[in-house]
Amino acid sequence: MNRKLRMGMIGGGIGAFIGNVHRIAAQMDGKIELVCGAFSSTPEKSKESGKQLLLPNNRVYGSYKEMFQKEAKLPADQRMDFVTIVTPNNVHYDAAMSALSAGFHVVCDKPMTMTLAEAKRLQTKVKQTKQLFCLTHNYTGYPMVKEARSLVRGGQMGRVRKVVVEYPQGWLADRIERNNRQKQAIWRTDPKKAGSSCCMGDIGSHCENLAEYVTGLNISELCSDLTTFVKGRILDDDGSVLLRMQGGAKGILWASQIAVGQENSLNIRVYCEKGTIEWHQEEPNTLIVRWAHKAPEMRRTSTAFVGKAATNNVRTPAGHPEGFLEAFGNIYKAFAQTLEKKLNGKKVDESKADYPTVTSGVRGMAFLEAVVKSNTSKNKWVRVSK
Amino acid sequence: MNRKLRMGMIGGGIGAFIGNVHRIAAQMDGKIELVCGAFSSTPEKSKESGKQLLLPNNRVYGSYKEMFQKEAKLPADQRMDFVTIVTPNNVHYDAAMSALSAGFHVVCDKPMTMTLAEAKRLQTKVKQTKQLFCLTHNYTGYPMVKEARSLVRGGQMGRVRKVVVEYPQGWLADRIERNNRQKQAIWRTDPKKAGSSCCMGDIGSHCENLAEYVTGLNISELCSDLTTFVKGRILDDDGSVLLRMQGGAKGILWASQIAVGQENSLNIRVYCEKGTIEWHQEEPNTLIVRWAHKAPEMRRTSTAFVGKAATNNVRTPAGHPEGFLEAFGNIYKAFAQTLEKKLNGKKVDESKADYPTVTSGVRGMAFLEAVVKSNTSKNKWVRVSK
Amino acid sequence: MNRKLRMGMIGGGIGAFIGNVHRIAAQMDGKIELVCGAFSSTPEKSKESGKQLLLPNNRVYGSYKEMFQKEAKLPADQRMDFVTIVTPNNVHYDAAMSALSAGFHVVCDKPMTMTLAEAKRLQTKVKQTKQLFCLTHNYTGYPMVKEARSLVRGGQMGRVRKVVVEYPQGWLADRIERNNRQKQAIWRTDPKKAGSSCCMGDIGSHCENLAEYVTGLNISELCSDLTTFVKGRILDDDGSVLLRMQGGAKGILWASQIAVGQENSLNIRVYCEKGTIEWHQEEPNTLIVRWAHKAPEMRRTSTAFVGKAATNNVRTPAGHPEGFLEAFGNIYKAFAQTLEKKLNGKKVDESKADYPTVTSGVRGMAFLEAVVKSNTSKNKWVRVSK
Amino acid sequence: MNRKLRMGMIGGGIGAFIGNVHRIAAQMDGKIELVCGAFSSTPEKSKESGKQLLLPNNRVYGSYKEMFQKEAKLPADQRMDFVTIVTPNNVHYDAAMSALSAGFHVVCDKPMTMTLAEAKRLQTKVKQTKQLFCLTHNYTGYPMVKEARSLVRGGQMGRVRKVVVEYPQGWLADRIERNNRQKQAIWRTDPKKAGSSCCMGDIGSHCENLAEYVTGLNISELCSDLTTFVKGRILDDDGSVLLRMQGGAKGILWASQIAVGQENSLNIRVYCEKGTIEWHQEEPNTLIVRWAHKAPEMRRTSTAFVGKAATNNVRTPAGHPEGFLEAFGNIYKAFAQTLEKKLNGKKVDESKADYPTVTSGVRGMAFLEAVVKSNTSKNKWVRVSK
Repeated sequence: MNRKLRMGMIGGGIGAFIGNVHRIAAQMDGKIELVCGAFSSTPEKSKESGKQLLLPNNRVYGSYKEMFQKEAKLPADQRMDFVTIVTPNNVHYDAAMSALSAGFHVVCDKPMTMTLAEAKRLQTKVKQTKQLFCLTHNYTGYPMVKEARSLVRGGQMGRVRKVVVEYPQGWLADRIERNNRQKQAIWRTDPKKAGSSCCMGDIGSHCENLAEYVTGLNISELCSDLTTFVKGRILDDDGSVLLRMQGGAKGILWASQIAVGQENSLNIRVYCEKGTIEWHQEEPNTLIVRWAHKAPEMRRTSTAFVGKAATNNVRTPAGHPEGFLEAFGNIYKAFAQTLEKKLNGKKVDESKADYPTVTSGVRGMAFLEAVVKSNTSKNKWVRVSK
Repeated sequence: MNRKLRMGMIGGGIGAFIGNVHRIAAQMDGKIELVCGAFSSTPEKSKESGKQLLLPNNRVYGSYKEMFQKEAKLPADQRMDFVTIVTPNNVHYDAAMSALSAGFHVVCDKPMTMTLAEAKRLQTKVKQTKQLFCLTHNYTGYPMVKEARSLVRGGQMGRVRKVVVEYPQGWLADRIERNNRQKQAIWRTDPKKAGSSCCMGDIGSHCENLAEYVTGLNISELCSDLTTFVKGRILDDDGSVLLRMQGGAKGILWASQIAVGQENSLNIRVYCEKGTIEWHQEEPNTLIVRWAHKAPEMRRTSTAFVGKAATNNVRTPAGHPEGFLEAFGNIYKAFAQTLEKKLNGKKVDESKADYPTVTSGVRGMAFLEAVVKSNTSKNKWVRVSK
Repeated sequence: MNRKLRMGMIGGGIGAFIGNVHRIAAQMDGKIELVCGAFSSTPEKSKESGKQLLLPNNRVYGSYKEMFQKEAKLPADQRMDFVTIVTPNNVHYDAAMSALSAGFHVVCDKPMTMTLAEAKRLQTKVKQTKQLFCLTHNYTGYPMVKEARSLVRGGQMGRVRKVVVEYPQGWLADRIERNNRQKQAIWRTDPKKAGSSCCMGDIGSHCENLAEYVTGLNISELCSDLTTFVKGRILDDDGSVLLRMQGGAKGILWASQIAVGQENSLNIRVYCEKGTIEWHQEEPNTLIVRWAHKAPEMRRTSTAFVGKAATNNVRTPAGHPEGFLEAFGNIYKAFAQTLEKKLNGKKVDESKADYPTVTSGVRGMAFLEAVVKSNTSKNKWVRVSK
Repeated sequence: MNRKLRMGMIGGGIGAFIGNVHRIAAQMDGKIELVCGAFSSTPEKSKESGKQLLLPNNRVYGSYKEMFQKEAKLPADQRMDFVTIVTPNNVHYDAAMSALSAGFHVVCDKPMTMTLAEAKRLQTKVKQTKQLFCLTHNYTGYPMVKEARSLVRGGQMGRVRKVVVEYPQGWLADRIERNNRQKQAIWRTDPKKAGSSCCMGDIGSHCENLAEYVTGLNISELCSDLTTFVKGRILDDDGSVLLRMQGGAKGILWASQIAVGQENSLNIRVYCEKGTIEWHQEEPNTLIVRWAHKAPEMRRTSTAFVGKAATNNVRTPAGHPEGFLEAFGNIYKAFAQTLEKKLNGKKVDESKADYPTVTSGVRGMAFLEAVVKSNTSKNKWVRVSK
């Protein structure tokens, strides 16, 4: 394919942290270009954002409905190829369903929907339309996460026994949502926009996804204790969850937004019969690998001592740290490769693609639903819907 | 007092790791000397150990009963002042009760007894006899643990919200207790000697003690999930516990003996309203302190930037790492100071001493009993006896 | 300015590590686009690279001379605005001089030229043409390097006493330049392409630049010991240098390409009268700050606890690691801002721009010349040309 | 041998940091006991120290001359076996010569003497008297230093190419010697007591010793730049040295007492043809080992993955951090084993003992003499006396 893929964007106007992240990540490898967008819930703000992004005025829309309608009518060599949805959670479902109906492939932020029921309907829609659907569980894009996955799933470490996955942040330790400029804090703590959970929906879902991605084992039962530490807040800002996973593995999952001084400290340890992996998102280029029968190793991004899955996801030699944006870019890169293949008329099996799909989105919502149910249950264990 | 305190020892014969630890720790500061012992359950082995320890033959006994009897008859200027009990768990209770009855002060390893009922009887005995009783929860002897405690309890960090305490080890990842030389593995996995729990009794109890020591908050309710991962083993080798603490704090406690590649990785994080402390036993001279309103600090042993509680527990200047033995020695040092005071006829309030007492032992057994009960309960929360 | 800046590229064809780095860095923030290039010394390879980069065939040139000629004739709304030179060292000078003559602004890789004399002529040319000239000393683009600079130069730490700057790599520990695929190894060890030094020219120059950037003090005298450890190699693959800097500061500079197992471990420590900064390129988002009168701090990218110079150079919130490409992008971002200003007709004083200029290039060549001279001198100290 | 070895002490009265260190280290393993001492230059202070150390009054002496005289006359089963000299540097030579003359074995602090000539005379004396002489270069007592030595000398890493050894401290960054309570600062900055160098004599000598110990290669030539940063001070408080070692290895040695915020940060890296070791004294239980052909390892004290030399020097299982005092204790332990053998009438070859001997002391003084000479020389390289 001798052209860039054309991306439209929903949400992510100037000032929204995540919009810029998606734009940099998508365009990083020179395979995708932003061509249009409906950047805000108000047409004026959308126009202003489009202008600052140097887009032509006629490709900046007042709503995503308008965007789908007008883009669909453009000539094939101008029309956007896919849309990326980077709005608050409550918009995801309708925007994604509409995009698929209008014939556009979709990249969507997580959590995928507001409820498990919605997630399942979206899954059905993806199957019916045969469009691509990529969920930006970005942390799985890190090379050393892929190395961890290869090690744990590769068999040399034996069966998984214990998973400890944590995601402490401290940014909501005070009630900053009362401050009008803190847009992300406002919508994430608002049940109408965030859904049934703040902390578990936003970052607990990353923990669930990371644990299942690395181990290949689903969480089957759980026992949760959610807390709202900050007075006046409605949704949880911290949650601890005991996990039971397929194959007898046990786990602990902790996510928090009130962990003062923690920035974005997602980390995972997987203890198997013969070895252990440990990874920290804030120092993402090192994977600590411990073995029963030899000294612990520090596997490092881009060195000769890591496997192909990791090596396929780097841009620079060893010691040139790659970070959050590059990992995010890897999700888009994998999506672009698959989309290119599809647009070239080749057969594509999305379940084998190296990016999270609608299936991950359904898993995430099943997890969330169980976590919220368990929190108020007197019974110890609650099943996670398959 | 112009002489060293005289210590007798029960258990800890040559080859037992913990016996040597206690001997080094107790004698480190030149205030205590080992004068006698009943080092083994067989008199021959006891004699052999005593010889290697350069003790006179007539101060090496075949049993602790014999030791208490004969030492009691020695002149006051030769008789041991206190006994230290470093046997497997099942011996602690009787040895301690007998020592107190015979008029000797006691230092005892943890967990204090086999059951909560025993623990309470021992507590009563201590009160009645007015002897000193020190429980060697040695990890509280580290200077940076004391600094953490001062910070968390001092008020400047606000209320405690979340405690995460972990103790992963990997030494029991395989069934090494079938190997006849692995004495510690043999007794720790044997319900008759270890009690109702292996992992939680041995190291989970350190987590409980550390969490309550640093925060000053008792665990009031818990929800546990214990596992025996290694086939053929009877007791737990891993356990996850959700905690509810006094004052609304929540917690996660994890202890494991099957965490491959982990050595002795006890660590604690306490998240308060305005600050956070983080401490790792394997790098014990650094305390990471995070604040809501300034950059994170690394507080270091023996520097000018830590408080008195920490500074009182060091022997060398900053940058001269002190470790496990020194921390253990701090427990003995605090005990020796208190005992010296008592022997000098001064009034002593053991509840204010800077070492763990019988009260900690009762707390530990209450915790263990609740953990074991919760594990088989279908109810989510189990109360911890006060 | 309502359009992207148009960049041409010399060198950096497909397969060259550094070409891709420059393309990602330049285009990361959506302010620059690659529009043309002369990517290789052979026209065929240049065309092939241009094709893979999705450039139109008529904007891919066989040589940079051709590129300057033809681009200059294009209409103003198509013509490239500046050229970025990412070839081996021996091409820099002529390409840069030609570009400036042809009226194009220049971004150039380091070391700037082959000799100090060339560097000075280039400096003169820049002055005469009044074009912009940016030297990609990329490591100064890291936010925490800027924080270090602010701290050290801001006065609160007192005078600089000692600088220790190191850059160990291990990639040339064996004679890999005999392997035909190792293009970078081949030219860097070849005096005709690399100049008078391999190790000091490639990475020693980064040390010099970083030390002077952070402290604001020039190196006035030095004493060097260069070594070629790998048999058969002509140029140095390791070098130690003692430094004397303005104002009485002393320093140690070490660069190596034979430091087995080291990846790209540039690091700097600056010891002042009242404080110390320490920064490691491989974990670039942490700046360790030590003080005479308080506990050491970990200052972190994007937190509220760093200054404006750092904060202006981030794209994501705290805990979302930014790396090598983002730091490189910061150089381009600063250059783009300055160029935009200039193209908008505003007055520009490049000496105040937040990117390295031709002045840094002259400093670098003066340093290199002194290092090479000192290496064979019997006298202890050699002056660095001002 | 069924008794403890009897130690006398010169210097190290109450309040002197290093006296207490020697007492704890010597007595840690239950093989040595302090029986007498001349603890201070004034008899009153010596008596007071002896009393606090619980020594009988008649074994506390007013001077070391008196101690040698009187101890020599005691019955063989009471007399001290060896003396440990822990005074300021200027006393070492005479005390050691006198002890050897009086028939006592010697343990002595470093640097061994005030001059190289003295060091050589002392070496001759040791040969003549055939007494044991142990120099407490304590940092070589760390298990992971011994592991490093085994790895580097064992051949599997190939030839040594580069050594970087550093010892930054910050305690003399201000002129604290004017404060009367800072005894150590007072004598270390006083040429009459410390000799020709402050920083290099005190801690540079540890660097030299560590580099030669780990590599087995002597420093043959050097080029030094010493500085006195603090106004009013006479001796150096910082020094950088380029090294040329046997076999073509190169090195950098840096020691500083003005490195603000550094505690006691001795560290060494040795780069060989196929591997690299890195060790930091402040985290002494980890040895980072990098290899040309596999992922870097973290070798850890007391694990199954380190060699015999390391394993022989531990007291606790893996993960129970051992520190400065234990490493110091290892020197005494090795000395005690050798002395015991000698007292038992066995033949002893001290050059094969696992503790530093008078030979190390001579090396240290040769190094110091060359460093001081080079500092004022205009020639680049100065030879180190063999």
